[in-house]
Amino acid sequence: MEILDKLTALRKHMQEHGIDLYLVPSIDEHNSEYVPHCWQRRSFISGFDGSAGEVIVTQEHAYLWTDGRYFLQAQMQLNDEHYTLVKQTGLSANIEEWLTLNHNNIRLGVDSRVIGIERAAKLKQVLSTQGSKLVLLDTNLVDLSRQDLGEKLTLPVVYAFYLPIHYTGMTVEDKLAYLRGELTHHKADYILFNVLDEIAWLFNMRGGDIDFNPLVISYAVVGKTTATLFVDGNKLSKELADILIAAKVQVLPYQDFALSVKNIEGSVMLDDRTASCWMLSLLTNHQPVLTVRSPLSLAKAVKNKVEVSGSKAAHIYDAVAVINFLAWLDNYYVDGVDEIIAAEKLLEFRKKHATFKGESFATISGFADNGAIIHYHSSHATNKVIDNSNIYLVDSGGQYLEGTTDITRTIHLGNPTKEQKHHYTLVLKGHLALSRAKFPHGTCGEHLDALARVHLWHECLNYRHGTGHGVGSFLCVHEGPQRISPGISAIPLVPGMIVSNEPGFYLDGEYGIRIENLCLVTEIENSAVNGYGKFYGFENLTLVPYCSKLIEFEILTEAEQQQIRDYYSQIRQLVYPLLNLDVQVWLDKQLHLSSSE
Amino acid sequence: MEILDKLTALRKHMQEHGIDLYLVPSIDEHNSEYVPHCWQRRSFISGFDGSAGEVIVTQEHAYLWTDGRYFLQAQMQLNDEHYTLVKQTGLSANIEEWLTLNHNNIRLGVDSRVIGIERAAKLKQVLSTQGSKLVLLDTNLVDLSRQDLGEKLTLPVVYAFYLPIHYTGMTVEDKLAYLRGELTHHKADYILFNVLDEIAWLFNMRGGDIDFNPLVISYAVVGKTTATLFVDGNKLSKELADILIAAKVQVLPYQDFALSVKNIEGSVMLDDRTASCWMLSLLTNHQPVLTVRSPLSLAKAVKNKVEVSGSKAAHIYDAVAVINFLAWLDNYYVDGVDEIIAAEKLLEFRKKHATFKGESFATISGFADNGAIIHYHSSHATNKVIDNSNIYLVDSGGQYLEGTTDITRTIHLGNPTKEQKHHYTLVLKGHLALSRAKFPHGTCGEHLDALARVHLWHECLNYRHGTGHGVGSFLCVHEGPQRISPGISAIPLVPGMIVSNEPGFYLDGEYGIRIENLCLVTEIENSAVNGYGKFYGFENLTLVPYCSKLIEFEILTEAEQQQIRDYYSQIRQLVYPLLNLDVQVWLDKQLHLSSSE
Repeated sequence: MEILDKLTALRKHMQEHGIDLYLVPSIDEHNSEYVPHCWQRRSFISGFDGSAGEVIVTQEHAYLWTDGRYFLQAQMQLNDEHYTLVKQTGLSANIEEWLTLNHNNIRLGVDSRVIGIERAAKLKQVLSTQGSKLVLLDTNLVDLSRQDLGEKLTLPVVYAFYLPIHYTGMTVEDKLAYLRGELTHHKADYILFNVLDEIAWLFNMRGGDIDFNPLVISYAVVGKTTATLFVDGNKLSKELADILIAAKVQVLPYQDFALSVKNIEGSVMLDDRTASCWMLSLLTNHQPVLTVRSPLSLAKAVKNKVEVSGSKAAHIYDAVAVINFLAWLDNYYVDGVDEIIAAEKLLEFRKKHATFKGESFATISGFADNGAIIHYHSSHATNKVIDNSNIYLVDSGGQYLEGTTDITRTIHLGNPTKEQKHHYTLVLKGHLALSRAKFPHGTCGEHLDALARVHLWHECLNYRHGTGHGVGSFLCVHEGPQRISPGISAIPLVPGMIVSNEPGFYLDGEYGIRIENLCLVTEIENSAVNGYGKFYGFENLTLVPYCSKLIEFEILTEAEQQQIRDYYSQIRQLVYPLLNLDVQVWLDKQLHLSSSE
Repeated sequence: MEILDKLTALRKHMQEHGIDLYLVPSIDEHNSEYVPHCWQRRSFISGFDGSAGEVIVTQEHAYLWTDGRYFLQAQMQLNDEHYTLVKQTGLSANIEEWLTLNHNNIRLGVDSRVIGIERAAKLKQVLSTQGSKLVLLDTNLVDLSRQDLGEKLTLPVVYAFYLPIHYTGMTVEDKLAYLRGELTHHKADYILFNVLDEIAWLFNMRGGDIDFNPLVISYAVVGKTTATLFVDGNKLSKELADILIAAKVQVLPYQDFALSVKNIEGSVMLDDRTASCWMLSLLTNHQPVLTVRSPLSLAKAVKNKVEVSGSKAAHIYDAVAVINFLAWLDNYYVDGVDEIIAAEKLLEFRKKHATFKGESFATISGFADNGAIIHYHSSHATNKVIDNSNIYLVDSGGQYLEGTTDITRTIHLGNPTKEQKHHYTLVLKGHLALSRAKFPHGTCGEHLDALARVHLWHECLNYRHGTGHGVGSFLCVHEGPQRISPGISAIPLVPGMIVSNEPGFYLDGEYGIRIENLCLVTEIENSAVNGYGKFYGFENLTLVPYCSKLIEFEILTEAEQQQIRDYYSQIRQLVYPLLNLDVQVWLDKQLHLSSSE
């Protein structure tokens, strides 16, 4: 279907609703980054299917905002007759600024279910300075357009199951008790949840409604003595249903959420950054509303001991798969392996482990210039054969019952150029610097981000993505609230948090480099003795060697080389014994760190 | 006078005004860090005279909040029978949190002239969650108490003069035209100013109403065709008065500000972070009020070419003085030199330059454990003889017509211990790392701060102050809006800004180390060619050698050693020729960088 037909259908509905501009956010009603097909409105209306991007449609034209990870992909996917790409960088015009500069006295419409309360308030304020108005709609005009064009939109129905205590480390009862403590602390009677990974975490529930994310489409309301999960009850396994009954959790249909919330008596807490305007609009019964950061956001981010040891185990299983894959590729690329086959082979190795439940995101398998597309997804149109003439980048991850993994390795199967080695080594130096950093309690990701960039910056180079994101425990591979990025999180990194460490460098049209480990924030022993409070550091969870061939040893300091040697002896200790003999032989070569190679 | 007498007087007035708690901020009616004696209310009521600290007095007790620079000083100056020191660190309870945790249903009073609009709104909101109320008073209860106890409070009257165009680089007319452009841009009719350095900058006016700060107590109102300076007209030099007349600036008495503002017709802009609640309360004539960041804040921070070359000149004059001082101290300390004599001698050397107008702050001259008090001021009670047994720290600066300087050097006149050398070198490594950093457009101080700390952090050490502050152009030695600190400024560093680079380390009861240069943000040539936008770096303005004796050369990388050598050759080129022969001989020895020393 042509993009113009879609835009025309939407513009008709805009006129009917008296809307001049229509905003299509990336998120769905659950503030999700990854959304099910029925809610992929931005992808439908623009053709751009990256994980982040927002659209504004006017009667004449349409605009897409996305960030540096997706500039190349968006340029390829957008029809530039009908769409303009607005590149979002730290300082460039965001949608709010663009609206201020370009529009007066207009009505901007948006579906109230897919816009957060805080965001809407900010938009409203910005629009009001130009005599414009934000119109919160009860229907989604893209959904209407999709139906006009013959699409049938249905919610996914996938089996949901109970994740046992030896994976979660905390019972549903204990999690509810913690939440009720928060209710008491904030003097509130109820708290509402729409964020799917928070609901999954709270009820030790996992499912498969969203690709790559073991989530179940649902809402939840927790009160001082009650707890209700709004979900399609047919999805629930018997075990999960029993666990919920035992924890005194009532299960009601997904659609009943609205009415139940309307009938709440008492004060209600919600997180105005993730809860939608629609949720707020349900609270018409004079309930006092308290906006707080969701107490589950941080509770979920700080892994308990069981989750930490689960993650360590998952990373060992994952290292076995990735090392097997890299050895296989090194041995068999001569037979003709392309990006898609490589990704399939990697999945095959991961599937060998019993607790592997699927990939944690679509594998990025990019050879040569395809590797320079930061969030590349290989298709039959773009697929390349991987040979020894250039760099190959593979970013992938697994969902194991024990935890979620995410790793990027960049390799060269032949003889890299001097420039490739130099760029790889600048990225590696940043990765190592962040990895060995120690920092005092109170330090946030925004304070550490520069450590990973400073060697690239020194040569006026950079990468257009953050350095690290939080990772869930058999949950979303991108999880807040902490991150490592120049953007201000205001969330101190504390022991138990898992973050990625993934600096990169991308030479458009040539090759891409990224080196990514997941790491655990840990407390340094006796670190408070000097009177500056506790200090923390990072422990590598990922256990796969870097690419020695791509290292320019002359610009590594002795300390950096030692750091790599220490890392490699960990790999030897934890992963090596689990490999077949032939792969051990291959790994041996990789772990032999020497500048003479 | 006993502190209890003062508190008793204040408590009487609190009762008369129906106030349970009384807040005494550090700032005055002009949001100044340094305040004239008549407005030093916090110092009067607490005895603590550091540059930052706030007091809350209840009927039973009193509390002082201050930051890590002043923990030791506050402990010494506070009477702990009547006062509790609350240490402010990044994460510990600030006043707002303390109020929430400790008080319900109270009335907190504060003079509306000494509390910013934004701060008051936040306080009001926090208090309301506990059923408490913020009471904005028209009188200052500490002033009333001071008068009760016989003090006569009068505003200073010091000569104010015109700073010529060859120092300021921009006429008053041009500055007013820029401001009026901002009025048009924001669709406003008038803008109000109470911040003294902004007013001084706008009118190319300097004075001496505040110690160390060449400022003139005044308000200003600028409209599209009018400009009014509210100041004691007797202070103005004939030349300044003439310049103001030529620029069509009306001069009215300081006291007329209130009435003039009340009579404004049209919309009014002000900066709600610096303008007081009292100023807002004057706008009772239904004027629409726009709150914006003051357009002068950034304009003043980004130095023009004349100001930049002025600053470079001032730093050469200052280097001559400081090097002469260090050479003198090295040669004559054996005759018996104490901290106060040393500071006086340094001032004497500075005074030799014709354009020197005074110190830019009270010199911190601290030997041994006195050096560990971050903002130490030597008194006859604490004064120590400087000898070769320990470390000496001297932090000082000058106000020259060409610019403001601020430098810290830490030296040892004998044989430092291994530990002293190690600590000095960790600080130096951070100082050098920040100094050589290159960073893309959009980078803020909060992103770079860790570069200066990471070597200390690695040994679980730290310093309890920011790494850098902005510096004025023959204006305040602490100037916003940019800074280098973990605290979020959200102000990108851009070419023309001057910031200090001053990591430190303090071993309480033993010694203090700080190494401080001022540096200029400059653009790296051709830095945008790689497509990542412009990159910036720092150029050292300060030109005085570090202390070779204190350097542990074994832990400096070759790159760091080269960086010091490059810096020293600059000193040799720019400062060496201006010194007397005997001082040249001394400097020669200092510039000879060798690990064999």
